[in-house]
Amino acid sequence: MTVIITHVARRFSDLDPLGHVNNTVFLDYLQEARIRALHEIGYLEVVNFSQVMAHQSIDFRKPIHYSLEPLTIEVWVSAIGRTSYHLNYRIINEQGILNAEAESVMVCFDNDKAVPIPPKMREALLAVAELE
Amino acid sequence: MTVIITHVARRFSDLDPLGHVNNTVFLDYLQEARIRALHEIGYLEVVNFSQVMAHQSIDFRKPIHYSLEPLTIEVWVSAIGRTSYHLNYRIINEQGILNAEAESVMVCFDNDKAVPIPPKMREALLAVAELE
Amino acid sequence: MTVIITHVARRFSDLDPLGHVNNTVFLDYLQEARIRALHEIGYLEVVNFSQVMAHQSIDFRKPIHYSLEPLTIEVWVSAIGRTSYHLNYRIINEQGILNAEAESVMVCFDNDKAVPIPPKMREALLAVAELE
Amino acid sequence: MTVIITHVARRFSDLDPLGHVNNTVFLDYLQEARIRALHEIGYLEVVNFSQVMAHQSIDFRKPIHYSLEPLTIEVWVSAIGRTSYHLNYRIINEQGILNAEAESVMVCFDNDKAVPIPPKMREALLAVAELE
Repeated sequence: MTVIITHVARRFSDLDPLGHVNNTVFLDYLQEARIRALHEIGYLEVVNFSQVMAHQSIDFRKPIHYSLEPLTIEVWVSAIGRTSYHLNYRIINEQGILNAEAESVMVCFDNDKAVPIPPKMREALLAVAELE
Repeated sequence: MTVIITHVARRFSDLDPLGHVNNTVFLDYLQEARIRALHEIGYLEVVNFSQVMAHQSIDFRKPIHYSLEPLTIEVWVSAIGRTSYHLNYRIINEQGILNAEAESVMVCFDNDKAVPIPPKMREALLAVAELE
Repeated sequence: MTVIITHVARRFSDLDPLGHVNNTVFLDYLQEARIRALHEIGYLEVVNFSQVMAHQSIDFRKPIHYSLEPLTIEVWVSAIGRTSYHLNYRIINEQGILNAEAESVMVCFDNDKAVPIPPKMREALLAVAELE
Repeated sequence: MTVIITHVARRFSDLDPLGHVNNTVFLDYLQEARIRALHEIGYLEVVNFSQVMAHQSIDFRKPIHYSLEPLTIEVWVSAIGRTSYHLNYRIINEQGILNAEAESVMVCFDNDKAVPIPPKMREALLAVAELE
């Protein structure tokens, strides 16, 4: 299994009245990490990529505060099915603290129905998944 | 079990290049629904309420498009523990289509550690949970 | 001059660590007011409308706090040119306090260049502008 | 006059159905640039800094698209008054294209009224303003 390391910048507007990054912003961070990870594995057409998120779960471990330094988000492929694949994430702050763990299920789509993962995409996913 | 019906407005800026509400915005909708639901059950100090979200999961069913009409978000209390409680949600659009289902685990906090749900809050939750 | 009255909901995530709506969110409110106002004057295809914002200015008068009640945003057409028109706004909270005043210059576009305001749109704008 | 060069990352969720960064997000970019610029001139307590934005104007020149590369935002101090100062900005994309120009008027506040710019802050601003 290859863990892809990504870096995502915070914004002051991510903070809420408690001075923490509001929980609603975590998915924004995961989305940036996912785009960067898919880019890194060679799947470049991220913007128009015909996939949808089917499921997302997230465990909040420690609040995230503002910093000019980026967050580190680890991304890895944890499962590959016929039409879907799973991505897992760990959000880690500039002090090495684990802030959150998350999982997404992504499904490939065409004309509003699930379709098999395109061969080129499956190959790219398999290369980093190294699933046994 | 009492389902609390809330209404949450979309914004044009919630949309992404696919013309759908981006997945990252769904937690924003759930947060508004949660604040309105807690308000409705009589727990008014929502803004400074010392609770944190420990876990969130969401199943995306159908894309949400823009509309001037609000979304309907059903909220109900599905479990009450010593320091935490569970909220479940269904997001339904202006045509009655189920767009997403979600669950949050909220934990009461004081000075960075979990504390028992305050009695007044527990009472309010129990009143709508009607758990058997 | 006809002032169009619109209502726009706040979100908890609009707030920053000072407990105020962050300044970056005001344009979001203005955008919702603009869409509602254009809808009201009968120009319905707001989502795919080929216009761009050329200029925006905003005067911040009083901080906006969170409330379950919507903001009232007054919108009016203050100028109509050949390819552009001006919209003015007043953001007023649930207590009648003036929070901000703003102006947008919108330009009609086609294939990346400014084009005359479409006749139907000009007619709709003139009907509410009642410019002397 | 010293121009402070800052770098601000885009997010996919900044895009709207036209595939451009929505106009409402530009103030978010300016806020990040401002925080980074104030940090750079040695005024570190940016998060709790008791200043408010009194005015913001922005000219939109060219649409911003998504890119993994950061935007370059130039920031400079264009005026210093007794209780307020002006910041100017230029947003430039990864291809060197000027996307927007903007100006903010910031006012120092204490207990809800304007107060003179704190001496240490004034000194820091003067050092980069080199106003004649």
